[in-house]
Amino acid sequence: MDLNLFEIFDVLGTVAFAISGALAAMNRRLDLFGIFIIAFVTAIGGGTLRDILIGNTPVIWMKNLEYIYIISFTTLLAIIFRNKINYLKKSLFLFDTIGLGVFTITGVETGIQNDLAPIISVALGAMTGTFGGVIRDILCNEIPVIFRKEIYATACLIGAYAYIVLYNIGLDQDLIYLITSLIVISIRLLVVKYKISLPSFYLNNSRNT
Amino acid sequence: MDLNLFEIFDVLGTVAFAISGALAAMNRRLDLFGIFIIAFVTAIGGGTLRDILIGNTPVIWMKNLEYIYIISFTTLLAIIFRNKINYLKKSLFLFDTIGLGVFTITGVETGIQNDLAPIISVALGAMTGTFGGVIRDILCNEIPVIFRKEIYATACLIGAYAYIVLYNIGLDQDLIYLITSLIVISIRLLVVKYKISLPSFYLNNSRNT
Amino acid sequence: MDLNLFEIFDVLGTVAFAISGALAAMNRRLDLFGIFIIAFVTAIGGGTLRDILIGNTPVIWMKNLEYIYIISFTTLLAIIFRNKINYLKKSLFLFDTIGLGVFTITGVETGIQNDLAPIISVALGAMTGTFGGVIRDILCNEIPVIFRKEIYATACLIGAYAYIVLYNIGLDQDLIYLITSLIVISIRLLVVKYKISLPSFYLNNSRNT
Repeated sequence: MDLNLFEIFDVLGTVAFAISGALAAMNRRLDLFGIFIIAFVTAIGGGTLRDILIGNTPVIWMKNLEYIYIISFTTLLAIIFRNKINYLKKSLFLFDTIGLGVFTITGVETGIQNDLAPIISVALGAMTGTFGGVIRDILCNEIPVIFRKEIYATACLIGAYAYIVLYNIGLDQDLIYLITSLIVISIRLLVVKYKISLPSFYLNNSRNT
Repeated sequence: MDLNLFEIFDVLGTVAFAISGALAAMNRRLDLFGIFIIAFVTAIGGGTLRDILIGNTPVIWMKNLEYIYIISFTTLLAIIFRNKINYLKKSLFLFDTIGLGVFTITGVETGIQNDLAPIISVALGAMTGTFGGVIRDILCNEIPVIFRKEIYATACLIGAYAYIVLYNIGLDQDLIYLITSLIVISIRLLVVKYKISLPSFYLNNSRNT
Repeated sequence: MDLNLFEIFDVLGTVAFAISGALAAMNRRLDLFGIFIIAFVTAIGGGTLRDILIGNTPVIWMKNLEYIYIISFTTLLAIIFRNKINYLKKSLFLFDTIGLGVFTITGVETGIQNDLAPIISVALGAMTGTFGGVIRDILCNEIPVIFRKEIYATACLIGAYAYIVLYNIGLDQDLIYLITSLIVISIRLLVVKYKISLPSFYLNNSRNT
């Protein structure tokens, strides 16, 4: 295999999201099948939604089998080393952030390649980056975490917007990848470090959860 | 812009559903991003499902950017005037009902234009009208309200059926729009006023919720 | 109607899944509309997901109206005889298992016909067989049961794999149908009889549900 920068990032992102899904499933005490399914949908959910919405079917993981192999192998490792991984939360967090950055880029790029408007490409980027986690949370019967905690998706949106700007400037593609990823990753790291969060807006009569 | 009757209704419906989504999200204390996402999926969820099921991709809001602008602007206003809106519940209810009527029509029409059977067109109408609310409730981790309260979707189904009948009679399209919308709106208003509800059927051993 | 073995199985499966959906909805005290919707999505959810993922749109029940008629009629009967059905749990279980077997086969076959890789065809088979139940559980606001109990989906996966093997051997198609269905059904019956379940893997710090 002769991987370029983008493909390396893509693999890292898929791995990180698969681990995050497997951990969520084990945390909910699902069985072996449930763990694999949740790991799988977390890793490919965003890309699948993107492909369905723009009509790029059969969806990507049906055409590139690498995704299935990578996710299966990662999930197996996650199960075996499940209690070790808790000590690795920082590296997991980093992988997850890389995944967010990379998947945002693939989404934006798909939008551009399909001649969609910039705002739609940005939306596709954010969806590809975050939707896997949304499905994971729905399947685990929880309110999707991205709606409640930290500026996860906002990092995505800013990165996607930066991609569009840099693309229109005409920068070299590898450079765009690198800069955009770094933007998403930096924002997320800063946000978590300084506990920045988006405002909520309560209704006077809203219930306490 | 030179809007016809149908497009005016469509805008009103999108606005009403966006407000309903934003209110539901604020009621669940979601953050800024969550509010926008829920407003967005409530407003475009039904049309998106319709487009995906019949293979009309990229889905409509990717091709007509007006939806994104209208929803963003509406949600912003909903956040700013969030506590005022509670006094407007009656007008919100009316907007919501108009949205239901209009989106039902776009769904039925899509079915007819794609040469699908009348019963499928009716189903598409009901889906387009109601699915946004279903996704809103799933994302907010609640049993979709249309499965539990009042004859919301039934109004939809009757209106959709009326559309098919009037269409086959060969009535003028603007007139069909008007009559069908009035049917959906009247049924819903009457149903809520007289607290009519569909029967539930309990199992002897069913649990109390 | 001149039904072949496969079509008879398909009808039985649709019927069983519709009943299972209707029972789940009545158990959650949903209204008449909710019962029909849940019955419908349970019966056609798997096939719909399959068709969307591979881009086979409009999805199958929009083209073959038989599905709608069968599901409507079955749901009506399920409501009327709702308290009798509880005594029929064994035959329901059998129908459900037949449905699982048949829908697995239609999924695998769709994959093969679309020239997808064997592993993808197996995944499509499992999805077609199980996804209706997953949507049913999500709409009823529960963690999908297949992630938690017995080797439901595993029976599916093994059957789907057997189908691929037998197909490559070049066996007669009717025979493949029969053998594959029997494999899925036998595994499920044995698993339930002997209370075999897939292992769960708990995290040290995982919460008790």
